[in-house]
Amino acid sequence: MKIQAFAIRDGKEFRLSNYSTDDTLHFSESDEQAVEEEMRENITEIEKLQDRLYAENRHAVLLVIQAMDAAGKDGTIKHVASGLNPQGCQVSCFKAPSATEIDHDFLWRIEREVPQRGNIGIFNRSHYEEVLVVKVHDLPSKEMLPDDCLKGDFWERRYRQINDYERYLYENGIVPVKIFLHLSKKEQKKRILARIDDPEKNWKFSASDLEERKLWDKYQDAFEEMIQNTSTEYAPWYVVPADKKWFARAVVSEILLDTLRKIDPKYPELPKEQAELLQHYRETLAKD
Amino acid sequence: MKIQAFAIRDGKEFRLSNYSTDDTLHFSESDEQAVEEEMRENITEIEKLQDRLYAENRHAVLLVIQAMDAAGKDGTIKHVASGLNPQGCQVSCFKAPSATEIDHDFLWRIEREVPQRGNIGIFNRSHYEEVLVVKVHDLPSKEMLPDDCLKGDFWERRYRQINDYERYLYENGIVPVKIFLHLSKKEQKKRILARIDDPEKNWKFSASDLEERKLWDKYQDAFEEMIQNTSTEYAPWYVVPADKKWFARAVVSEILLDTLRKIDPKYPELPKEQAELLQHYRETLAKD
Repeated sequence: MKIQAFAIRDGKEFRLSNYSTDDTLHFSESDEQAVEEEMRENITEIEKLQDRLYAENRHAVLLVIQAMDAAGKDGTIKHVASGLNPQGCQVSCFKAPSATEIDHDFLWRIEREVPQRGNIGIFNRSHYEEVLVVKVHDLPSKEMLPDDCLKGDFWERRYRQINDYERYLYENGIVPVKIFLHLSKKEQKKRILARIDDPEKNWKFSASDLEERKLWDKYQDAFEEMIQNTSTEYAPWYVVPADKKWFARAVVSEILLDTLRKIDPKYPELPKEQAELLQHYRETLAKD
Repeated sequence: MKIQAFAIRDGKEFRLSNYSTDDTLHFSESDEQAVEEEMRENITEIEKLQDRLYAENRHAVLLVIQAMDAAGKDGTIKHVASGLNPQGCQVSCFKAPSATEIDHDFLWRIEREVPQRGNIGIFNRSHYEEVLVVKVHDLPSKEMLPDDCLKGDFWERRYRQINDYERYLYENGIVPVKIFLHLSKKEQKKRILARIDDPEKNWKFSASDLEERKLWDKYQDAFEEMIQNTSTEYAPWYVVPADKKWFARAVVSEILLDTLRKIDPKYPELPKEQAELLQHYRETLAKD
């Protein structure tokens, strides 16, 4: 699957309007099952690479997922990560910050959750909320910043801080990959209606989703500016068409697989003396 | 006290050999009591500013202390911070990292301890151990970094990562101030001998201090290079002459005081409506 069409490594020219929400590459609705099969194959390979990543214990993957409400964050994580070994995979959800979190710098709660070597960390929302909901609702003051920290171009500074942070992670073996699930306003309406109409989905409905939906255009602008300013070679954004769940999930599985393939983790080889000792241990144990 | 003589805000030209370990400015041994009195006055003023810092709840101070063994880190903290309100002041000691800490990026254990708004945080050792002991003992591999993270100028990259991080803290209201307690090799010998000879100091003696002492010159080089590369306008180093404990402690109290004065925290003023409500509450309570 040609996922590179969705990758943004330099955001200068990026325009969200150039990206379709219902693109499915060369696949049509009738290919849904074949695409799902491809996703399952991807997951099987991801599992193998995860085992090596864990054994090598050098790199980590940090998969960040951002999107509007109902774009499929939870479902994508469920489908893509369900095959993985939970010992070596952790999902962190970032909701509205607590009072203690707000009393700290904005990366404080993020850095605590950064995966350790050998692990795949998945962020359901992330530090990017700081340039999305915080920006749309004009909330920097809520974070208790002193006045002198709000002067000049606050957002430009914050994008740079995020880029510096992700470069630091990358340079220390933690590879960031960022997914924007790109949903249409029409499809969101359909999905929120389903949350209201289907009793099994009621628990996912929140009246605040409707309030946020009113700010749709502001959010789209914030997403566009975010991608323009934080797409880098070391931490690219992928703009994944999300109107078709089956397609979005397959793309995300492919992105994760591609990231792991590039890391190319290997089972550690024992140094020669230790390999020889293994034979000695084998003989000792055999005689036991 | 003219502490600016000890401040390094641009390290390019910095040479450790230009800085004396037993400088006491215009004070002599006979001024010891007067200098201690000055320190006590400083601490009284620091306490007042700490109260405002806490009430305002916008900025934090991060005081980093680095030095050779026996240079007086513990004693300085004890003398300078003892007057402060512990609710609003936390000391974090960074010893050899645990297995879990080593499995994370090197700022993981640091960021957890960064003080929250309104607080003074004191780091007894810090992330700078990563360019000191790790450098002197050539230990980057110990931190489990993948090979591709060790390529090129590893140390230059690490200095840049630290600078980026401290700029981020500063831009988010957490003001870093860094102290290097500059001790002579001769004075260190005297103090380690005292740890061996004085039963009440035995607990502070560690045979490893003697091993590290053998690497004196390597450590001095590492300190010099650290100060050259991480002295910035937003996070200056202070090279504090540490051979005279009474002088070093007074200087550190002055540096902390100076930092708080520049932040200039103020008790929050209530908005007019709320101030008016206060009178209402007063009357209600008076009638109770």
